Amino acid sequence: MDKDAGALPPKHQFSEWYNDILWRAEIMDVRYPVKGLYVWYPYGFAVRKHVYQRLRDLLDRDHEEALFPLLIPEQEFMKEAEHIKGFGGEVYWVTHGGTAPLDVKLALRPTSETAIYPIYALWVRSHADLPIRIYQIVNTFRHETKQTRPMIRAREITSFMESHTVHETWKDAESQVESEIALTREFYESLCIPIIISKRPDWDKFPGADYTIAVDAIMPNGKTLQIGTVHHLGNHFSKTFEIRYEDINGEQQYAQQTCYGISERSIAALISLHGDDTGLVLPPAVAPVQVVIVPITIGKRHEDVIASAQSLEQELRNAGFRVRLDTREMRPGAKYYWWELRGVPLRLELGPRDIDGGTVMAVRRTGGKVALGRVDIKAGVSRVLAEIADAMRVKAEEHTKGRLCIVDTIGALTSALNEGNVAVVHWCNERACGDAIEDKTNASVLGTDVRSVYVPATEGACIICGKPGKATLVGRAY
Amino acid sequence: MDKDAGALPPKHQFSEWYNDILWRAEIMDVRYPVKGLYVWYPYGFAVRKHVYQRLRDLLDRDHEEALFPLLIPEQEFMKEAEHIKGFGGEVYWVTHGGTAPLDVKLALRPTSETAIYPIYALWVRSHADLPIRIYQIVNTFRHETKQTRPMIRAREITSFMESHTVHETWKDAESQVESEIALTREFYESLCIPIIISKRPDWDKFPGADYTIAVDAIMPNGKTLQIGTVHHLGNHFSKTFEIRYEDINGEQQYAQQTCYGISERSIAALISLHGDDTGLVLPPAVAPVQVVIVPITIGKRHEDVIASAQSLEQELRNAGFRVRLDTREMRPGAKYYWWELRGVPLRLELGPRDIDGGTVMAVRRTGGKVALGRVDIKAGVSRVLAEIADAMRVKAEEHTKGRLCIVDTIGALTSALNEGNVAVVHWCNERACGDAIEDKTNASVLGTDVRSVYVPATEGACIICGKPGKATLVGRAY
Repeated sequence: MDKDAGALPPKHQFSEWYNDILWRAEIMDVRYPVKGLYVWYPYGFAVRKHVYQRLRDLLDRDHEEALFPLLIPEQEFMKEAEHIKGFGGEVYWVTHGGTAPLDVKLALRPTSETAIYPIYALWVRSHADLPIRIYQIVNTFRHETKQTRPMIRAREITSFMESHTVHETWKDAESQVESEIALTREFYESLCIPIIISKRPDWDKFPGADYTIAVDAIMPNGKTLQIGTVHHLGNHFSKTFEIRYEDINGEQQYAQQTCYGISERSIAALISLHGDDTGLVLPPAVAPVQVVIVPITIGKRHEDVIASAQSLEQELRNAGFRVRLDTREMRPGAKYYWWELRGVPLRLELGPRDIDGGTVMAVRRTGGKVALGRVDIKAGVSRVLAEIADAMRVKAEEHTKGRLCIVDTIGALTSALNEGNVAVVHWCNERACGDAIEDKTNASVLGTDVRSVYVPATEGACIICGKPGKATLVGRAY
Repeated sequence: MDKDAGALPPKHQFSEWYNDILWRAEIMDVRYPVKGLYVWYPYGFAVRKHVYQRLRDLLDRDHEEALFPLLIPEQEFMKEAEHIKGFGGEVYWVTHGGTAPLDVKLALRPTSETAIYPIYALWVRSHADLPIRIYQIVNTFRHETKQTRPMIRAREITSFMESHTVHETWKDAESQVESEIALTREFYESLCIPIIISKRPDWDKFPGADYTIAVDAIMPNGKTLQIGTVHHLGNHFSKTFEIRYEDINGEQQYAQQTCYGISERSIAALISLHGDDTGLVLPPAVAPVQVVIVPITIGKRHEDVIASAQSLEQELRNAGFRVRLDTREMRPGAKYYWWELRGVPLRLELGPRDIDGGTVMAVRRTGGKVALGRVDIKAGVSRVLAEIADAMRVKAEEHTKGRLCIVDTIGALTSALNEGNVAVVHWCNERACGDAIEDKTNASVLGTDVRSVYVPATEGACIICGKPGKATLVGRAY
């Protein structure tokens, strides 16, 4: 990959744009010699670090972080029948240590229910031990046979946050589901990513769950990307793994559970939704570099400008901004291009005239420039960064709204989908009608009980059978 | 594991003490149903988090963090002959995806040279690309056949920091080795762990290295624990993986490399060296809770004391201390026991008389108490935490010094080792004499070129052949 080779494809050629920006902005290298496994470049890893730090900060309010083993013995993995049906076909198996076969085959976790719940069975004794709210951020594995794509469909999911909670009652677990949804909203709010929350149809829920609430984003090409799921597990797993507690009356009860996951698809959405023809655009909350200072040193005041830029850098760093001063021997224009490609939200230009005038020129990655007073530069930078986040949010919301349409015939649904939209239809909640929708349109019934300001919670005639139905999201999903 | 079951074994029964403290202080649960795999409890994970944050802070000065895949295809893994000899027997192999055999077997990384260097071959083009200094913190795997122990010899090493650097010249790589050693010193200094640095004998160096510098700690039972290694790889791997750069004269050159690792053995040493009969003792730099406040609410001033304790907590938190206010419904004595077991360095007791007197009683986990003025409590807490770190350092150094002895006969060497010591002998550097030392004593020649204030850099007659030899460390290693 020659770094000087050509230009970034335009964003409307989304697939080419996505593939290209990953190496141009040094997010991921796709040349690892196994299909579906990728390398995080340092810059990509820095983005990942800030995104997951944000997630940790939110989780740490009322969850605890722990760490369970990657390898799951076959007998534990095989305990829950639904779970095997859901994941069994994609599980990687470790069968040998050195040249000798293992006594017990070991699964690489595709998700950790069967690794964690045997331990929860030991930890939970009494109602006083509940609730348990534990998460881990780990690598998980799926032997994907579909086309793989970095961060979207990978064989090693390098950054899977999975939270596993245990409660006394079904209602308690339901409240936890709501609490995880609220957390997810807050997380994506800081990434400026509009999300659509819905209840997955029964045939698409997590294997072994009572129900699944999913979080989708609409990608630039109109496909939906599932970027979070929260599952009410009821007592399916607690019965399988014998997770019981003594209630306040001294009776043994099976615990109620939830699990909840967010993967690096969050970063795929981040890159895809905000990027433009020039490169990445990163929200200030998670940008590894929030502010880049480019000194404009034309003529003889070189040292003067550099000193001034250094003092600006120091002041902003002390104020807690992630700031970089670019003193490389390059033309300013080449530096602009470099940092724009990498999505740095704010560029500050500082030249002799700015110094004389007591100003700094602030250039937003989202467009537009404004002179800021040097004296109160910290307040100015804070304000402009907030404006940038707002502009990103507005733009992403407009995209999302623009891709949603309400239709009431199969013909209109098919057209809407073919034009790259996500559609809202009415559906009676019967499997047969759901199958008919999916078969006729080559799309997925994403969910009911949609929670989105963009989707009205209407009722109407099922698009297939005409019986009473509720607003339902239909789209083509990654 | 009934949490009320008996007491912690005394520290001098080290093996029992170590096993017991892991669950009593909620560091690790050993009941995972696969030998050699363990679960980090939330409290243990918090210790791990702070230890590795410290390591990251040091590395981030001049390294970049990245992330490479876990799975290594057989053909890459098999490229470096020495490497296979060193690790081949312990490698876990993934052979199946679902029920179908894979086309190419995949190794779980035992260490990542063979995952990273094919990518470095793509990244390195010119001398201008060098040096590269990249690290990752990942899980690695070894199918251990020896006795496994949590954090000391595990089949999943959950927290392996591995740094891989690339340089132009052998000298540059040598300087990097020295730089990594300096970093390691600084890291263990903040953990209050005395280390002994030496050059491993040739037969014990990293497979494929020019030489290996190792870092050992002396554990409470006198065994040594290797808690860090830095390897000068020369151009062995760059020749195998074709990592070449164009030098300043336009000539293609093989790059020079180093690698460097620190695992969760660092935490095993931390727990083992500092703990006592009462429980853990954690250095302030990495304690998840640095200060616990226990309100003493006897009689009717309950609310007064709680309010005062809350304001104390807030003030310390705002000052950046990791502080916890313990308001549980338990006797103060039970709280003391609870937090002492978990190694919290400083306990602050606050009762009505303290409030009236404008003081707070500070009780060091390392022993002794002192009344601190409430007005300047932040300075007081800083000072006492520094005293605690000093006391821990002094105690650990005394232990280390006390376990080292200089001997000059095989008889004295055997006695010293049998008494639980690590010995310094003179050795001529010949393999035959090294083997003789190891055979006669059932111990290991750990290294030459010892760097430790406790070990004089003397020369003398080889303990086997009598020829000129240098000070050499001999011990029984984990």
